Amino acid sequence: MEEMGVIAMGINDFLRSGNDRLDRHLLFTAEIDRMTEVLRQTLLINGSRRENDAEHSWHIAVMALYFSEYASEKVDIGRAVQMCIVHDIVEIEAGDTFAYDPQGNKNKAEREKEAADILLAKLPEDQGNMIRELWEEFDAMETADAKYAACLDRIQPFLHNTLTEGHTWGNGRVSREAVEKRMKIVREFMPEVYKWINANLDNAVAKGWLTS
Amino acid sequence: MEEMGVIAMGINDFLRSGNDRLDRHLLFTAEIDRMTEVLRQTLLINGSRRENDAEHSWHIAVMALYFSEYASEKVDIGRAVQMCIVHDIVEIEAGDTFAYDPQGNKNKAEREKEAADILLAKLPEDQGNMIRELWEEFDAMETADAKYAACLDRIQPFLHNTLTEGHTWGNGRVSREAVEKRMKIVREFMPEVYKWINANLDNAVAKGWLTS
Repeated sequence: MEEMGVIAMGINDFLRSGNDRLDRHLLFTAEIDRMTEVLRQTLLINGSRRENDAEHSWHIAVMALYFSEYASEKVDIGRAVQMCIVHDIVEIEAGDTFAYDPQGNKNKAEREKEAADILLAKLPEDQGNMIRELWEEFDAMETADAKYAACLDRIQPFLHNTLTEGHTWGNGRVSREAVEKRMKIVREFMPEVYKWINANLDNAVAKGWLTS
Repeated sequence: MEEMGVIAMGINDFLRSGNDRLDRHLLFTAEIDRMTEVLRQTLLINGSRRENDAEHSWHIAVMALYFSEYASEKVDIGRAVQMCIVHDIVEIEAGDTFAYDPQGNKNKAEREKEAADILLAKLPEDQGNMIRELWEEFDAMETADAKYAACLDRIQPFLHNTLTEGHTWGNGRVSREAVEKRMKIVREFMPEVYKWINANLDNAVAKGWLTS
């Protein structure tokens, strides 16, 4: 076996169980390990490398356990955590779209819908639908749980940016206005957290990490 | 800023919010990003590198959404998912202990208890206690939710091993008996999945990935 960088093995070694549902569960589990290959623009806080979608999803799921006191509507934490862990799962097929890329965001909805069709068809239908509903609810940002998960999905990379010299913003030459637009849901749903966001926006402009 | 491998930035740039609880929430969020630095023995399924604790925790949390039909007791999926995302969080302080390392497992409980004291004291007390309770419940493996999470914590690396030529087992020269012992909870709590485990144990011995 080659140690690094080459797929020297894999799915050909999969032994079928004789139970079709179980095979689907096991193969889907193998499939979603590719979430670790979907890189985001955001750096890890130690600055060593870009974070991946699995890490990001885990991170906001943990945040969901202790940020609910700032939410302006009552949140079901158990549901919000489930939403956090699957909110980016279609990116296994669709890839990550940088939040501040206007071109990439134009056809994002369509690309992700097709990706969901491909990915979630690998699960038994009832469970594919269940994950699709969580993902669609997240994306629509209408329910309290979805707004909560959406806020965490914005606060986490914002925090990373404030601790990595605005890495993502500088790379994209992002404006304060663009970040404010992205953070609108936090301003509306978590006003106490937005005060801290706003102070950091001032700081980021002063430091030249964001254009004013 | 240096791009790779060096912490050129970080927590010194943190702006306090003026709200002590919020500062604790934000700093704890930054702290647990170190979960991405805790490497496990298990390889990613593509064989490219070892997986880290954030990736592993995310992976079993997603599994929790669709494996409950094999559980021999009724499971609360929302709670089980919460348990999955924090079940290894004390390893940020304690490090990962290889499942098949008898020495490392001797004082594991003590090391992890101290680690929990250090890590979770960074959160407001009510929330540190909430995460500690989830983690202790997982570790005690007595409730249905904890047994469920424990099964997923064993099935996921087992699946990875079957798809990476028994990587972890070969490195440690592990015996079939040791893996059977580790998989005991799956045999008891998810007998249908254990049939597939057992067929893979036969296969792993036949291929020389496990000693018989």
